[in-house]
Amino acid sequence: MDTDEDTIDLRSDTVTTPSEAMREAARDAEVGDDVYRDDPTVNELERRAAEAVGTEAALYVPSGTMANQIAVHVHTEPGQELILERESHIYRWELAGAAKLSGTQTRTLDAGERCVPTPEAVREGLVDEDLHRPGTGLLALENTHNYRGGTAIPVDRISAAAEVARDAGVPVHLDGARVFNAAVALGVDASEIVDPVDSVTFCLSKGLGAPVGSILAGDEAFVEAARRVRKLFGGGMRQAGMIAAPGLLALENVDRLADDHANAERLAAGLDALDGVRAPEPDTNIVVAHTEDAGIAAADLVTACKDAGVGCVEFDDYATRFTTHLDVDGDDVDAAIDRIGDVVAELA
Amino acid sequence: MDTDEDTIDLRSDTVTTPSEAMREAARDAEVGDDVYRDDPTVNELERRAAEAVGTEAALYVPSGTMANQIAVHVHTEPGQELILERESHIYRWELAGAAKLSGTQTRTLDAGERCVPTPEAVREGLVDEDLHRPGTGLLALENTHNYRGGTAIPVDRISAAAEVARDAGVPVHLDGARVFNAAVALGVDASEIVDPVDSVTFCLSKGLGAPVGSILAGDEAFVEAARRVRKLFGGGMRQAGMIAAPGLLALENVDRLADDHANAERLAAGLDALDGVRAPEPDTNIVVAHTEDAGIAAADLVTACKDAGVGCVEFDDYATRFTTHLDVDGDDVDAAIDRIGDVVAELA
Amino acid sequence: MDTDEDTIDLRSDTVTTPSEAMREAARDAEVGDDVYRDDPTVNELERRAAEAVGTEAALYVPSGTMANQIAVHVHTEPGQELILERESHIYRWELAGAAKLSGTQTRTLDAGERCVPTPEAVREGLVDEDLHRPGTGLLALENTHNYRGGTAIPVDRISAAAEVARDAGVPVHLDGARVFNAAVALGVDASEIVDPVDSVTFCLSKGLGAPVGSILAGDEAFVEAARRVRKLFGGGMRQAGMIAAPGLLALENVDRLADDHANAERLAAGLDALDGVRAPEPDTNIVVAHTEDAGIAAADLVTACKDAGVGCVEFDDYATRFTTHLDVDGDDVDAAIDRIGDVVAELA
Amino acid sequence: MDTDEDTIDLRSDTVTTPSEAMREAARDAEVGDDVYRDDPTVNELERRAAEAVGTEAALYVPSGTMANQIAVHVHTEPGQELILERESHIYRWELAGAAKLSGTQTRTLDAGERCVPTPEAVREGLVDEDLHRPGTGLLALENTHNYRGGTAIPVDRISAAAEVARDAGVPVHLDGARVFNAAVALGVDASEIVDPVDSVTFCLSKGLGAPVGSILAGDEAFVEAARRVRKLFGGGMRQAGMIAAPGLLALENVDRLADDHANAERLAAGLDALDGVRAPEPDTNIVVAHTEDAGIAAADLVTACKDAGVGCVEFDDYATRFTTHLDVDGDDVDAAIDRIGDVVAELA
Repeated sequence: MDTDEDTIDLRSDTVTTPSEAMREAARDAEVGDDVYRDDPTVNELERRAAEAVGTEAALYVPSGTMANQIAVHVHTEPGQELILERESHIYRWELAGAAKLSGTQTRTLDAGERCVPTPEAVREGLVDEDLHRPGTGLLALENTHNYRGGTAIPVDRISAAAEVARDAGVPVHLDGARVFNAAVALGVDASEIVDPVDSVTFCLSKGLGAPVGSILAGDEAFVEAARRVRKLFGGGMRQAGMIAAPGLLALENVDRLADDHANAERLAAGLDALDGVRAPEPDTNIVVAHTEDAGIAAADLVTACKDAGVGCVEFDDYATRFTTHLDVDGDDVDAAIDRIGDVVAELA
Repeated sequence: MDTDEDTIDLRSDTVTTPSEAMREAARDAEVGDDVYRDDPTVNELERRAAEAVGTEAALYVPSGTMANQIAVHVHTEPGQELILERESHIYRWELAGAAKLSGTQTRTLDAGERCVPTPEAVREGLVDEDLHRPGTGLLALENTHNYRGGTAIPVDRISAAAEVARDAGVPVHLDGARVFNAAVALGVDASEIVDPVDSVTFCLSKGLGAPVGSILAGDEAFVEAARRVRKLFGGGMRQAGMIAAPGLLALENVDRLADDHANAERLAAGLDALDGVRAPEPDTNIVVAHTEDAGIAAADLVTACKDAGVGCVEFDDYATRFTTHLDVDGDDVDAAIDRIGDVVAELA
Repeated sequence: MDTDEDTIDLRSDTVTTPSEAMREAARDAEVGDDVYRDDPTVNELERRAAEAVGTEAALYVPSGTMANQIAVHVHTEPGQELILERESHIYRWELAGAAKLSGTQTRTLDAGERCVPTPEAVREGLVDEDLHRPGTGLLALENTHNYRGGTAIPVDRISAAAEVARDAGVPVHLDGARVFNAAVALGVDASEIVDPVDSVTFCLSKGLGAPVGSILAGDEAFVEAARRVRKLFGGGMRQAGMIAAPGLLALENVDRLADDHANAERLAAGLDALDGVRAPEPDTNIVVAHTEDAGIAAADLVTACKDAGVGCVEFDDYATRFTTHLDVDGDDVDAAIDRIGDVVAELA
Repeated sequence: MDTDEDTIDLRSDTVTTPSEAMREAARDAEVGDDVYRDDPTVNELERRAAEAVGTEAALYVPSGTMANQIAVHVHTEPGQELILERESHIYRWELAGAAKLSGTQTRTLDAGERCVPTPEAVREGLVDEDLHRPGTGLLALENTHNYRGGTAIPVDRISAAAEVARDAGVPVHLDGARVFNAAVALGVDASEIVDPVDSVTFCLSKGLGAPVGSILAGDEAFVEAARRVRKLFGGGMRQAGMIAAPGLLALENVDRLADDHANAERLAAGLDALDGVRAPEPDTNIVVAHTEDAGIAAADLVTACKDAGVGCVEFDDYATRFTTHLDVDGDDVDAAIDRIGDVVAELA
């Protein structure tokens, strides 16, 4: 995307640029060789990140995809099944890594209305090992659920699904790329969401605003194994303190996610008011606009919005995603609604 | 299973024992080293098998599982998606080989009432290659559909589903382990069923009665590639003519499958008449008895039937499979109904 | 190869055709569905095969390649190293299955003069697991060593190499495709050769003359795991008793391997006497003729021999392999020497 | 390692900490979302990196291991062979990724005295695809060669080896983690070293002093494919400009590598003068000290040196590696020699 100054970039909360404070922190970071575990800033980030989600330990990795794929690799054996919701990021957007890198067979569960598999769905999806079947190795959940529109899954629903798996001896991973958005929306501490699961991914580079990196957290044995797989996948970095330092500041950005949610709500209301557009009230910072009634294909909407100075992404044939984040304020939202309104009027 | 002389073994049509003629053919087979392609009987079987399903070429392999897994391996690249119905043999009973041996991600399609994905379901299941997704590499269909109760899928439904895939450049494999049962039930030649697909598996060792082996058929380039993967998977055999010879006779057993279907119909009617048992009229040779109303778990039914001299297998919590085949005649069916009736009366 | 009646086929001992007794045994075999473990003949073969090599249990599989690849799969985890001699069958002729099917990295050992890695070579090849290295998962040995010319490795050499591995907690697999040739040549019982290792492959279809199949043997837990991987690889067969029955007779062919060795010695002497040909005295039934001095490329020799009615295979640029077996007697050997002599005279 | 101020850290050139200028550059970097290819600093780094080694295109990745593993993945198909020197980083230190992530079988070549396979060795290592063998997919070379002590391989030797492979249609990858050390030592431009190969890895985070990251370079089609595999492996980063900016400065550090080489020469001379220590004159910045004559195990030397304030790493039973880099000057080298001298005197 041409970084036209005037553009309001709502493609993703990954587009946020680091704050001045983060830039200063990067410059001043105390660093060492993290492959030798000598980088004090990375060590501090891993300690603080574990604290933030209430786990024993944590690992800093270059991307959320790597965090998720390491989790699959550590929790499963080749040939076992990974059960997860059909539109999960792990299944949909990670280049079939579960099969390709870990030899894991995926089984998709019916997620029902609220996008998280019910206990019954999990129970039905569990497969016992026998002569013909390798059994289930992992249940993966996602909160907030990206493709379902940033849905914040309540703690008791996560617990209920996870409990069924764990009772059957199957570990549970949470793709919590935006778990702090869920925590803020639900009014709970992130550790409460993470408590029922065995491992969690969260991204420093989305709403929290860090330039690079994600966290994979769990108990010490898990993180120890994960550190090794990180090396295998090529995620071992050297003086990573320079990007971990902004990550430490990102952990302090949790409370301000409420602003993104308010902005998303404002945006959804504005879009939903447009003729032929349906934009349900969002739980968090992701707005999905459905333009089937207006007869506008998402691909066309994305192109026209880009020309009009609004960045967004196609989600499905007639569904387009707009994401709020810390580089977008209320005025930007109002301006975006105006511009999108013009585009819709023209295309309809 | 103790091979009590008196037992009526309806566990599977794989339990058939070779006829006298097949045994004589094995004894008299002209053989050579098939790895060097020197076995005239195997060569003849491959020629005749290809003819039987109307393909250019065919390959003799030790099992239906190997035939299917070779097909997945040849048609797909690691990371691509394999789309297929959720209860397909390839997905359910082959130890996750698609993921483990070929790095393929499976995507299950809604098969609707008739157990074959509709054109719409196939269209929805196709994924285009992009930066995040490796795209669809193969559509696999199954006819007759084992888990759905030996359903014979009409040719036009196979065609319709296959056409959508092939129009998108995606090859189609048919797991036709019992494709001749489908052909007989539908009153068509097997080649008509196979015509819309790129490759097909069929078993010589099920209803056709051969002791060992399956066929993987397709065009010459496909079979050439498959021959190599057969070696990789350890399926290259030496003087295999000794088991290929009975396979040649098995190809002449197609017409007699009608008897198995008649026996299955008779069995289903008998079971359906029992209190608390539901056994829908079968298309082919597989009868599924549902005993939820009688409150009899399938696992219990299987055990009690075994004691009463009837072999069967658990399919689901309350579903039990009975399969007719060439070692079972009408009297056996009547006797089986009586024995099962007693068992059900006792357990209910 | 055109099976010209007159041809003396020395390409491999895999080309042997079953005896009349074997053919009768196949016809009369008591069979059942071996996937359900109901085939009494297969069960008997597995019992007798285990006995023959002195292990707790054994598994019947379609090929030696499958036996070896199952062993690698069961013994190792993806990413571990498999150490073995550079010209081992597993490394050289099995389509990189260790890497492709099991994700195992191979490390080749210097085999020294006698083709079996010395204890020092094994010690040097062992890699401890650390942050950068997954460690050694398996040592594979081969006896007799095919590529090295059917060398029979003495028991104490096998023991010495195996002991180093096992002391380090690394299991040992023996590719004993021709282990009975080794036993006969060394004048020991096969169980003595197998005693120092954890698992062994041997072929019924080579010098022992069965039409199809190999044995993978080891302790009960190993064979139980192997049975499952056999299913994954597609090696589960149905009424396999028909080919297991000749296999039972093959186990009685051990003593007659001495004839093959005598014939091989006679052949080597005859070839070595030809101008420009070097054919070292063989340990067992494999003769390797080196024709560099005569300036005859192996590829040319193979072609010309074929035309002259002798089957053989290219082993290397100037090395050609001739194998004796139960379909070849002393007169055949003399005739073969004459024919090859003419060919060499013409090509030199 | 305790970062005692006084310690002279010679464990690796990866321990260098970023300069003030690099820190400022990080702070001031213009950034964007690199997954969308919107980060101008990353784009600039990739452009300049390609220029520096004379290729069409380049890709920024988190580590040298990822760069190498992506190259293996792009160049080979599962089951093909990767030929390379036995002590190559790709084979020895990357957790068997070639087998595990790419299903590639490795074949090690005899590197001869100068640590680069001769044309003859490459020719012998090439395997043609046939029924039993998948053929060679890639030749990987390494320059400078880490394990062999930072050896700088002359251009004509690289060319000669590469030419044999490319003539056979096999691509060539160069693990040039320290390719600029080679260039400086040989007095040539890096592009001359890279010219005979298809792709190259080099590290910004070793002697060049950047905090994080490596480059994978090749032609446009290769880099396009590599970008996708980077995503699969989890190496897609967001506002990576913050670490790419120091990387741009690192590219200007090439000439100063000569200082590291001079320091290494001085260190080697000093160590070689110690009783019982042999330290051959290095080509570049890696000194390997052999202490077999002194009867000092490398593990003991490393521990004692650490206590005495010198960081180094064990390379083999009696071989210890010391690496010079931009945080070490001539005085540090002299001090290190003194300290190591005391340690050796005490341990001997």
